[in-house]
Amino acid sequence: MDATVLYSETFLAFATYATIAVVKMMLMAPLTAYLRLTRQVFANMEDTKLLNPAEDKKLVRVDPDVERVRRCHQNDLENILPFVVVGLFYALTEPTPSTALFHFRVFVGSRIGHTVAYLLPLPQPCRALCWATGVATTLSMAFRVLGATLHL
Amino acid sequence: MDATVLYSETFLAFATYATIAVVKMMLMAPLTAYLRLTRQVFANMEDTKLLNPAEDKKLVRVDPDVERVRRCHQNDLENILPFVVVGLFYALTEPTPSTALFHFRVFVGSRIGHTVAYLLPLPQPCRALCWATGVATTLSMAFRVLGATLHL
Amino acid sequence: MDATVLYSETFLAFATYATIAVVKMMLMAPLTAYLRLTRQVFANMEDTKLLNPAEDKKLVRVDPDVERVRRCHQNDLENILPFVVVGLFYALTEPTPSTALFHFRVFVGSRIGHTVAYLLPLPQPCRALCWATGVATTLSMAFRVLGATLHL
Repeated sequence: MDATVLYSETFLAFATYATIAVVKMMLMAPLTAYLRLTRQVFANMEDTKLLNPAEDKKLVRVDPDVERVRRCHQNDLENILPFVVVGLFYALTEPTPSTALFHFRVFVGSRIGHTVAYLLPLPQPCRALCWATGVATTLSMAFRVLGATLHL
Repeated sequence: MDATVLYSETFLAFATYATIAVVKMMLMAPLTAYLRLTRQVFANMEDTKLLNPAEDKKLVRVDPDVERVRRCHQNDLENILPFVVVGLFYALTEPTPSTALFHFRVFVGSRIGHTVAYLLPLPQPCRALCWATGVATTLSMAFRVLGATLHL
Repeated sequence: MDATVLYSETFLAFATYATIAVVKMMLMAPLTAYLRLTRQVFANMEDTKLLNPAEDKKLVRVDPDVERVRRCHQNDLENILPFVVVGLFYALTEPTPSTALFHFRVFVGSRIGHTVAYLLPLPQPCRALCWATGVATTLSMAFRVLGATLHL
C-alpha cells in the first residue's frame, strides 16, 4: 500500500462513484419535502405553518407515499454508507483498476435500480435483487480488504 | 492531488469540523436516553426495568418529545454523514484554504442552528433554512469533487 | 502527521476493525429480511407477493421482533458510522499502536455485545453498558483528534 494511491485512477473513480451515490441519497430528502408540502402531511406541528397561517393539528399525520420515500432513504443510509467505508479501504488496497471500476459501477447501478424499483414501485423481486446486488458488491470488497489488511 | 494533503491546513480543518459535527450528532443519543428515563417512555420491555424492579408494559409507548429528538438525530445522520464523505474527497482536491474553511464553517453552523430550531422549536422556516443551507454546502463541495475527479 | 500513515500498523488495524464493524452492521438487514419472510410481516404491499401470488393487505403490518432488529440496526448506524469517521482521523494522528488497538478492540467488542444484548434480549443494564462503552471509546478518540488537529 502506497500513499500515492490517493491520486491513482482507482481512487479518483471511487471518489466519483461514491459522490454520485451520496448525492443520489441526499436527493431523497427534497423528494420527501416535496411530497410533504404538496400532500400536506407533516411530522411536526410547527411545519404546518409553512402552508397555513394557523397551525393545523390534522396535518400532522402519516402518509403511505411519504413513508415509502422515507424507507427508500433509510435503505440508502444502510447500504450506501457501508459502501463508502468499505470502498475507501478497498481503493487503498490497490486493486486492479478494471476490477475496482466494475465493483463501483455495479454498486451505483444497483442503487439507482433499487430507488426506481422502490418508488414506482416495480413488482418484486426487482427491488430485492437490486438490494442483494449492492450488498454482494460491498461484501466482495470487504472480503478483499480483510484479506489485504487483516491486523487483529 | 498530492499525498501531503493529509497534513495540509485544509485537511486538518476538515478533520476538526467533521469531528465536531459527528460528536454533536452523537449527543442526540444521550439526550434521547435522558428523556426516556425522566419521562418513563421506553421502546423495549426490558428497558422499563431500569426504573422499576417489575417490568411495566404501560411504559413501552411513544412520546412526542422523544420522537422529536429522534427525528432530529435521524436528520443529522441524513446530512452530516454525506458532508463527511463529500468533504473528505473535497479536502483531497486541494481547494483554496479560505474557501474550504468557509464551506466547513457554514455547514457546521447550519447544523447547530438546525438542532436548536428543531428542539426548541423555533417557528418555521428557521429549521427549513438551516437544513437547506447545509444541503447547499454539501452539494457545492460535491460539484467541485465531480469536476476535479470525474472518472466514470 | 505523515502520508505513510496509510500503510502504518495502526491504519491497517483500523481498516480491519472498521470493516468488521460495518459488515456486522450490514448483517442486520438479511436478519430483518429473514424475519419478515418467515413471519410474513411486510412494510410494502408489493413485498407480500414474494410469498403469495395474490397481494395480501393483512401482511403489511408491524411485528415486535422485526422492530427490535430494526432498532438494533438503527443503533448500529448511529454508533458505528461515527466510530468510522472519528477513527479514520484518529488513525491519521499517529497514536501509539497499542493504545489505538485497544480503542478499536473495545469498540468492536462493545458493539457485538450490544447486538447480543439487544436480540436475545439480555436484562438491562447489559445493553446500556455496551452502548455506553462504545460511545466512550469514540469520544476518547474524538478528544485526541481535536487535540491534535484543532484548526477552527
